[in-house]
Amino acid sequence: MRKQAKEITQPKNMLTKKQEKYVKSLHQLKGRRQASAFFFEGHKMAVEGLGESQLDVEQIYALDSWIEANGQDLGDSLAQKIVAVSEREMKKISALKTPTPVLVVAKQPEMEQAIRPKTKGLTAIYLEGIQNPGNMGTILRVGDWFGVDQVIASPESVDFFNPKVIQASMSSIFKVKLAVWDLDTLAQKKKNNQLWATAMEGTPVQRMDKTTHPVILMIGNEGTGLSPKAFELSDAIVSIPGHPDRKAESLNAAMATGIFCNSFVTI
Amino acid sequence: MRKQAKEITQPKNMLTKKQEKYVKSLHQLKGRRQASAFFFEGHKMAVEGLGESQLDVEQIYALDSWIEANGQDLGDSLAQKIVAVSEREMKKISALKTPTPVLVVAKQPEMEQAIRPKTKGLTAIYLEGIQNPGNMGTILRVGDWFGVDQVIASPESVDFFNPKVIQASMSSIFKVKLAVWDLDTLAQKKKNNQLWATAMEGTPVQRMDKTTHPVILMIGNEGTGLSPKAFELSDAIVSIPGHPDRKAESLNAAMATGIFCNSFVTI
Repeated sequence: MRKQAKEITQPKNMLTKKQEKYVKSLHQLKGRRQASAFFFEGHKMAVEGLGESQLDVEQIYALDSWIEANGQDLGDSLAQKIVAVSEREMKKISALKTPTPVLVVAKQPEMEQAIRPKTKGLTAIYLEGIQNPGNMGTILRVGDWFGVDQVIASPESVDFFNPKVIQASMSSIFKVKLAVWDLDTLAQKKKNNQLWATAMEGTPVQRMDKTTHPVILMIGNEGTGLSPKAFELSDAIVSIPGHPDRKAESLNAAMATGIFCNSFVTI
Repeated sequence: MRKQAKEITQPKNMLTKKQEKYVKSLHQLKGRRQASAFFFEGHKMAVEGLGESQLDVEQIYALDSWIEANGQDLGDSLAQKIVAVSEREMKKISALKTPTPVLVVAKQPEMEQAIRPKTKGLTAIYLEGIQNPGNMGTILRVGDWFGVDQVIASPESVDFFNPKVIQASMSSIFKVKLAVWDLDTLAQKKKNNQLWATAMEGTPVQRMDKTTHPVILMIGNEGTGLSPKAFELSDAIVSIPGHPDRKAESLNAAMATGIFCNSFVTI
């Protein structure tokens, strides 16, 4: 009798323990690697991500209010992946302080295996050991803004699918092509691209010829910059000149990336 | 007898309840306004700030280890302002998750009353309603890098002396001249400067003439941009063109500010 009553009061698609454990595992790098999956949160991100036809969606966890307002806009196959959850349940699986009404779990998109052919301009950004997820996300966003085809990270960089990277990317994670290569792989696959190392001291990027060959821009770790090996492989070392009277010691890595990208814009 | 014993076991400069209450009050805008004071934390920030001869330091709260290593580098008058605190006490007054060994309380520097004369280039950045402390701090840092003399905030912008602004500024808060003016005041005081409004749609900043007059660049709120009044007052509306195929909807306000600043650099 009591068992029967309990079943009736449960919502149809209540979050199972297994689902909760799985989404929680995706908060960690290990879990994301094992499942080759990731998650993203928030109405805007959800709408953007679910609109990507190539994205392999596993499950959509959403509050009733979100499902009522948005469920009918999803195609049948996506609608079947909705799991109605309570606010309390959402809190358990969310990575945000203030959980949003929807959290989508999807397979990680395929990594790129080659550099996309280009005759000039900025082909790709290579990130060697970027550690701050906010910086990585901001770099994806600014790369997307300036039409950079690819962002390639060294294996020791922060994971593209870290929840904080995803949030900071503002859905540009769905647009930019991604790859994880070490420096040797980059050197093998760079084709006709020049590799430009970025540093505090170097040729002002304004002075560089950007019209005769495509470029892959290398950005180093926030604290230590690029490795000696990256400099050895590079065709040029470029910098962003500051004011002679400045006191600021450096530019933030994401800020510098944005300024470098902008310098390739031809108006 | 017991009272005597208690006095002996207390460290000489133990944090008083009054001091604790005061520093805590500076975490809030109201407290900072009442006292016209602020605080900054961390070894690097402390060294930079304490090296500024104009800064009116009230108190230096530090762990014994920091005092041993750095106390002798301070002049006599600063050394007298040191209060030795325990890690537990530091935790009470710090704004950081992981408190650092030193926290300095100082009077807020005087705000600027006029625009500094300049014949061309970027004179000042005007921030209308910037809300995110990280953005404000990053703008101070990038402004410092590019030698912008002044950063002026509208009254509704986040407080320059918010602890998160201070941290993000990476000590550029000590270098850049600050002012808080509304738009009417800006219009009265702009002298020979052109006011450039920044927006998603406008003349590409690359195409603007930067050689014949000085410029004050106006940056709007993160969500809503500049107000209609700011556009009315402006001499030009400028933008940062993205790639035609981009999906990113916008650039972060601090990122955009950095790219605009860089466009004034003449190499």
